[in-house]
Amino acid sequence: MNATLTNNIKHLLMALVAQGVRDFVVSPGSRTTPIALLLAELAHNDANIRITIDVDERSAGFFALGLAKTKSWPVVLLATSGTATANYFPAVAEAKIAHVPLIVLTTDRPQELQNIGAAQTIDQVKMYGTHAKDFAQITLQDEGANVTEYIDYHVQQLVNIAATAPAGVVQINLPLRKPLMPDLGEVWPSVTKHNILASARTPKANNVEEFVTLMKTGKVMLLAGPTEGRMDTKAVLMRDLAELLKVPVLADVLSSVRPNKWAINGIDALLEADVVTEDLVPDVVFRFGGTPVSARVSSWLKQNNVTLVQVGEEAVGHDYTRYAKLTLNCDEETLLEAMQTLGDRSDENPFGNAWLQVKATLNNTVANAEFSEATLPVALQALPYGAEIFIANSMPIRDMDNYFVPRNPVRAFANRGANGIDGTVSSAFGMAMSGNPAYLLTGDLTLFHDMNGLMLAQQTGRPMTIIVVNNNGGGIFSFLPQAAAKDYFEPMFGTPLNLSIEKIAALYDAEYVEITSKEQLAQTVSVPADKLKIVEIKSDRDKNVGDHRQLIDQIKAAFND
Amino acid sequence: MNATLTNNIKHLLMALVAQGVRDFVVSPGSRTTPIALLLAELAHNDANIRITIDVDERSAGFFALGLAKTKSWPVVLLATSGTATANYFPAVAEAKIAHVPLIVLTTDRPQELQNIGAAQTIDQVKMYGTHAKDFAQITLQDEGANVTEYIDYHVQQLVNIAATAPAGVVQINLPLRKPLMPDLGEVWPSVTKHNILASARTPKANNVEEFVTLMKTGKVMLLAGPTEGRMDTKAVLMRDLAELLKVPVLADVLSSVRPNKWAINGIDALLEADVVTEDLVPDVVFRFGGTPVSARVSSWLKQNNVTLVQVGEEAVGHDYTRYAKLTLNCDEETLLEAMQTLGDRSDENPFGNAWLQVKATLNNTVANAEFSEATLPVALQALPYGAEIFIANSMPIRDMDNYFVPRNPVRAFANRGANGIDGTVSSAFGMAMSGNPAYLLTGDLTLFHDMNGLMLAQQTGRPMTIIVVNNNGGGIFSFLPQAAAKDYFEPMFGTPLNLSIEKIAALYDAEYVEITSKEQLAQTVSVPADKLKIVEIKSDRDKNVGDHRQLIDQIKAAFND
Repeated sequence: MNATLTNNIKHLLMALVAQGVRDFVVSPGSRTTPIALLLAELAHNDANIRITIDVDERSAGFFALGLAKTKSWPVVLLATSGTATANYFPAVAEAKIAHVPLIVLTTDRPQELQNIGAAQTIDQVKMYGTHAKDFAQITLQDEGANVTEYIDYHVQQLVNIAATAPAGVVQINLPLRKPLMPDLGEVWPSVTKHNILASARTPKANNVEEFVTLMKTGKVMLLAGPTEGRMDTKAVLMRDLAELLKVPVLADVLSSVRPNKWAINGIDALLEADVVTEDLVPDVVFRFGGTPVSARVSSWLKQNNVTLVQVGEEAVGHDYTRYAKLTLNCDEETLLEAMQTLGDRSDENPFGNAWLQVKATLNNTVANAEFSEATLPVALQALPYGAEIFIANSMPIRDMDNYFVPRNPVRAFANRGANGIDGTVSSAFGMAMSGNPAYLLTGDLTLFHDMNGLMLAQQTGRPMTIIVVNNNGGGIFSFLPQAAAKDYFEPMFGTPLNLSIEKIAALYDAEYVEITSKEQLAQTVSVPADKLKIVEIKSDRDKNVGDHRQLIDQIKAAFND
Repeated sequence: MNATLTNNIKHLLMALVAQGVRDFVVSPGSRTTPIALLLAELAHNDANIRITIDVDERSAGFFALGLAKTKSWPVVLLATSGTATANYFPAVAEAKIAHVPLIVLTTDRPQELQNIGAAQTIDQVKMYGTHAKDFAQITLQDEGANVTEYIDYHVQQLVNIAATAPAGVVQINLPLRKPLMPDLGEVWPSVTKHNILASARTPKANNVEEFVTLMKTGKVMLLAGPTEGRMDTKAVLMRDLAELLKVPVLADVLSSVRPNKWAINGIDALLEADVVTEDLVPDVVFRFGGTPVSARVSSWLKQNNVTLVQVGEEAVGHDYTRYAKLTLNCDEETLLEAMQTLGDRSDENPFGNAWLQVKATLNNTVANAEFSEATLPVALQALPYGAEIFIANSMPIRDMDNYFVPRNPVRAFANRGANGIDGTVSSAFGMAMSGNPAYLLTGDLTLFHDMNGLMLAQQTGRPMTIIVVNNNGGGIFSFLPQAAAKDYFEPMFGTPLNLSIEKIAALYDAEYVEITSKEQLAQTVSVPADKLKIVEIKSDRDKNVGDHRQLIDQIKAAFND
């Protein structure tokens, strides 16, 4: 009936699978019919293929993003033609900067219906502009001699383009002509895997030796920036190297290097409290990963004229301070492994020990401070072994970066490429697909922006604990200069939505708890949820500003004692 | 303090106002600070300026779209940098095809923070690609000699580019450098209005004469397609012309030509029931407005080799049947007015009378049919005088196009440019800003996709009655071939979300009513709501397919009697 279409779609899907794609996030529609049905047949035959359905494409995009972060491998999105595909744009923009591999399959009307008033037809060619790493238009209803083989090869190539550093988004636009019904229940072709993966770049031996010598003798620190998706091995290697060479690590909350003896948290708070004395300034810093959550740390290094070496292949050129003396574009794991082969440091490192003292003073002070938005990360130290927590942008990520030191190995995630507040709930459910205990820390405004993402609890069947700090609006703006414009501040920036978190929980059949103490929060998060659980902490924007200022004062006082 | 920035923003805002812009839809953020605060000051001083705050930019985009439709004049959107701006993409894509004028102000990071790892920084230059009609990047922090005068002039030009046919979207990207606080409380400049509006094209006199002669003697029909935003005057002119020349009008539900003696509804159902006999086929059809909601009508005209003349300046070239014999790119109002000057038709028009008979038979049959999703439009005939109803895509727009004949003059709206299900609730609230009694007819899936839009009830303070046909999923797919793929249909297309409409109403403090009869619905909608009111009609997807088929059978039977 529809043999060419059916066969080419099967090759398209099998080519994706041949290159290791396992997850497909589908938003229902009409134009997607043949792909969606054959995908369902494929999943029916192969238990490794997972399909998640999300009717809201904006949410679907961010869900795929979160999922791809946990896998470090492309996740496929599938949408029908028209504005549906435009809803992926926010997640695509985030994925570009955060180096998250996504394959976006946008189905389209055939060429004879373009720009001529047909329904659900918008210009989808290169529609994400520079935000996609590559674009291909594949005509599936084409009986040309080499078309099927081309699909086999090129789709595999596109998976690798999306996956190799810097990872990013590939859009494949698929014009489809009616009839759209594929032939179901027939034999599937086998597709050969092509080896087209680009090899990782290797650091030079003299670089490695020079670095290790520096670390053993000088005032050197590592700066571990956000690298959620690809951090597991690197985090372990970095912890081992720090231990071996006794080097302190300025460990971003998204580096997964915490907890570790040498992992220093809270650099932003320490700099704000102005307690980082001159003897704590390093001579050399090796920065791994992306732009750190703390903006102050970059300025501080620059002001003190610290030699900054930027290492790694993902975030090359991502240094808005334009300050790195050397950028080493190489595979980070290879470098870290090579450094470890050059032996340990036998003597004490007084510089490193001074930083350990700073860390102890900071964390003791915060541990004894009153329960507030700022100190809430202390209670989250109780997260269970192997937990994964997605952290919303704006205030939560700043507080967690300062004060979150998990007791157990925990992976922390956030959308720090473009730092949007959009799509956070969906990205968290994407993360939850890993099957590990899942948590989301968010404010009320960010929760609201992606409230539809809560439907993924039902669609995925994944349990999650969502901790909502409800200060009725945009808390971060109270810290910015516009807070002084009192006449216009509340409607233009504060945006109180008067959301009832309890009613949101009711709408999505979630368990609801309101929490008022550190102990209660620690106890609640120590046990993974078995369904959707929403934990509300009521706060107040003005009080929050005061609490943050008071905590900085307490830190200052502790260091001056 | 920040004199250049303050002065240039004031000129930007006053230039918009000089060209008639009154509505600003703002999503809070940090980078927008100086514009948002000065805008608030402007609105404080000038009661004609309206600001609506919507934290969800996707919703804000569709809200502005709905609002601009009622005004036929540009509405301004303002967002902070990063993925926030990407959330406008779905509404921008819709606006392009539906010819809705929007000015999108995207604030941006300054050039030194581009593509270098800075936060909330994505490539915003021409980010909507071909979907925007024009793009300008304006640097407000520039002390160059003619910059302020340039802003005065160019911004006024851009308003006109957005507004003139075919109306569309203009993106103005505004890179802003810290400090962002403007100077408040100072004198505002006055800005001179430039006369740069393009003049409308005038139809040629011989065309007009030829058309009128044809209408007085031949088997001629008018086809009034969707033209919501600009239809008020045209609809009246078209009704008058039909009356004068006794010409039947195939009146799309979005043409606002209904109710009228000569306005024929339900052409799609009539063709489906196969009751449009040969003597009813016109020789010539004049099509005004966009692509009709009914897909069958275009095919029917083509199959019968009817001479199709496409008239108007907005939708030129929007004829995916590629069948129009003549496209008259001219101002429709001018043409309609010119035609009326050539006098009335004195004798009877048997062709026209035959169509009036068809209309009577159809509407009598439907009026007496059982209450169902299909016949629900009959109850909506009770909408009060001057009401405005926004109709969701998918099933509601089809049913309304067939069977909705309001008793009073009512304006009907829908997003028929790209036909998305996204943003419908927000667009409806944009429509509601006109202050007329506001209604929204939607299915549950479309409601869910833009549930955040319900927050606009609070943000705008506008009352609205939302009629939700809840068939727990995507009802339209049950009419398509994939419904036969029973194994995969329900999760891949049906997408039951098991939403509780009552709990949604509770979350947003809306009045909730469940309705089960035609009379109850008619009574409920006859009185405008005084707050947010959600009316649920529970349906069933399988039953809905049966009901639609049964109604077509009844129509067939009525004509065969």
